Amino acid sequence: MFWLDGKVVLLDQRRLPDEEVWTAYDDASDVVRAIREMEVRGAPAIGCAGAFAAALLARGNSPGPELRLRMREVAEARPTAVNLAAAVHRMSNALMMMQDPVEEAQAIWDEDLASCRAIGALGAALLPDDATVLTHCNAGALATAGFGTALGVIRAAVSAGKRIRVLCDETRPWLQGARVTAWELQQDHIHAEVIVDGAAAHFLQSGEVNAVFVGADRITRVGDVANKIGTLGLAASASTFGVPFYVAAPTTTIDASTDRADRIPIEHRAPDEVAIVAGKRMIPLGVPARNPVFDVTPARLVAGIVTEVRVERPPFLFS
Amino acid sequence: MFWLDGKVVLLDQRRLPDEEVWTAYDDASDVVRAIREMEVRGAPAIGCAGAFAAALLARGNSPGPELRLRMREVAEARPTAVNLAAAVHRMSNALMMMQDPVEEAQAIWDEDLASCRAIGALGAALLPDDATVLTHCNAGALATAGFGTALGVIRAAVSAGKRIRVLCDETRPWLQGARVTAWELQQDHIHAEVIVDGAAAHFLQSGEVNAVFVGADRITRVGDVANKIGTLGLAASASTFGVPFYVAAPTTTIDASTDRADRIPIEHRAPDEVAIVAGKRMIPLGVPARNPVFDVTPARLVAGIVTEVRVERPPFLFS
Repeated sequence: MFWLDGKVVLLDQRRLPDEEVWTAYDDASDVVRAIREMEVRGAPAIGCAGAFAAALLARGNSPGPELRLRMREVAEARPTAVNLAAAVHRMSNALMMMQDPVEEAQAIWDEDLASCRAIGALGAALLPDDATVLTHCNAGALATAGFGTALGVIRAAVSAGKRIRVLCDETRPWLQGARVTAWELQQDHIHAEVIVDGAAAHFLQSGEVNAVFVGADRITRVGDVANKIGTLGLAASASTFGVPFYVAAPTTTIDASTDRADRIPIEHRAPDEVAIVAGKRMIPLGVPARNPVFDVTPARLVAGIVTEVRVERPPFLFS
Repeated sequence: MFWLDGKVVLLDQRRLPDEEVWTAYDDASDVVRAIREMEVRGAPAIGCAGAFAAALLARGNSPGPELRLRMREVAEARPTAVNLAAAVHRMSNALMMMQDPVEEAQAIWDEDLASCRAIGALGAALLPDDATVLTHCNAGALATAGFGTALGVIRAAVSAGKRIRVLCDETRPWLQGARVTAWELQQDHIHAEVIVDGAAAHFLQSGEVNAVFVGADRITRVGDVANKIGTLGLAASASTFGVPFYVAAPTTTIDASTDRADRIPIEHRAPDEVAIVAGKRMIPLGVPARNPVFDVTPARLVAGIVTEVRVERPPFLFS
């Protein structure tokens, strides 16, 4: 995702790995729809997309209640990642201070990319040479302004000359691991293998995995981590088998306003995202599915949180 | 599955829930193929199918090296579930003792059904009224001669008047939970909901699940449990959040010949079972998938093993 000639340019992640379809949007409503419908996803990425959407709004609307309402619509396009609301909040402040909205949105994007590179460098030091890393969902270039958080760590380790293999959880229901993470790693010629989410514990038990690295959508003051559904079970398995479980996320993902993991709004999406796979219904008609798309991993299962500032170790206390 | 007029009659589980296709086989090779290709699956069920295949062989072949070779082919159609090899071994012994092979195979089937009913009665006592049970894969009527092991427990609890809700892990890559377990429960008007495998930990953490019940493909002398891939992660999550994790399996699933979980042969199936979902490739071409289809849950994560004899509690020691 990037800003070009007054437009937000997004890669439609739902169509990977089959097609690379980039679309340039100059209407904020289209960007809100793209966020809701997961054309763009990943906490830092939807923060950046939200900032660009706010810039588009600021260009087309005078300050006032209508603009505030439409800004709120952007902020609330998805509830769990704190980055989206935080980015829109920062854009609102910039507008109040009469700063240029496009410059501010671009600054958010630039800072995110710089954070990812710093996270990569700090996290890479945690990986030995000749290591296997297990990751979940996509915490890559496509989930951020670029370079990625968990995949940024892997990229930085590879750049530093380490031999790294990646086991990618496929990450049902949207299969971002199979479709997006595997695609990103293939582009960079990094050795990737895809497994079903249920196989992760088997590989953690086997001793072949050196570390788990995942991203985050919101981190509480005390280090509880909301992330893509399936992260919690992965953390429990990693803990059971003594494999370090690391979270890589910029400080913009930290919500220091709460210690209460149960106050994090967990998005539930349409049951058909579970029931229908590749256009085919997999569940008998009449049997419901439930589709919470994030879970919260308690801090006690987390070995470290890598931000752009440092590698935080438990007990966590963010401000 | 059942024996009728000299034929093994199988329901093609791969076509559920769309179609109920029953086929009657009178050639053992077809039954072996049906086992390999997962037209019939589930440890007790493939034991029964193997016994019937052996009966078909005994009918068409005189005793001798050719018959022994073909019996071995049945026994080795799939490696992990001990029931298959054990049932064929029992059939071989019966042939040596000049017993009627069809009667012996039918006895194996009858005993399995009786075991499931006994497991159901013993396991149901572990569930309170108004309970939510989480299960993985399909340990139901279709995985056994009938009634099921884990689902037998649920059926028995419902028959005893308890209100039971079931969360079904969809169970990638074959989606037996979404397709087969949900279908079985719907047939019996038992309240079922399907979740992605990655969501199980979230529901275990939430406090809404009273117990996990799964089946087994092979249980060692000391209570380590080989079962469908994903079981291990579920057990780790259940342990992390203090939800009792129960295994329901007939004693024919116990392999008392080994204490060594690492000696259990874990079947790896074709990577395309992971890569291709509903006919559509989900992984970029050139990126491999790995597809171990069973994992081994260490006894320390198991709260109890319900056989037809009793509810075994740790430390387990089977003979």
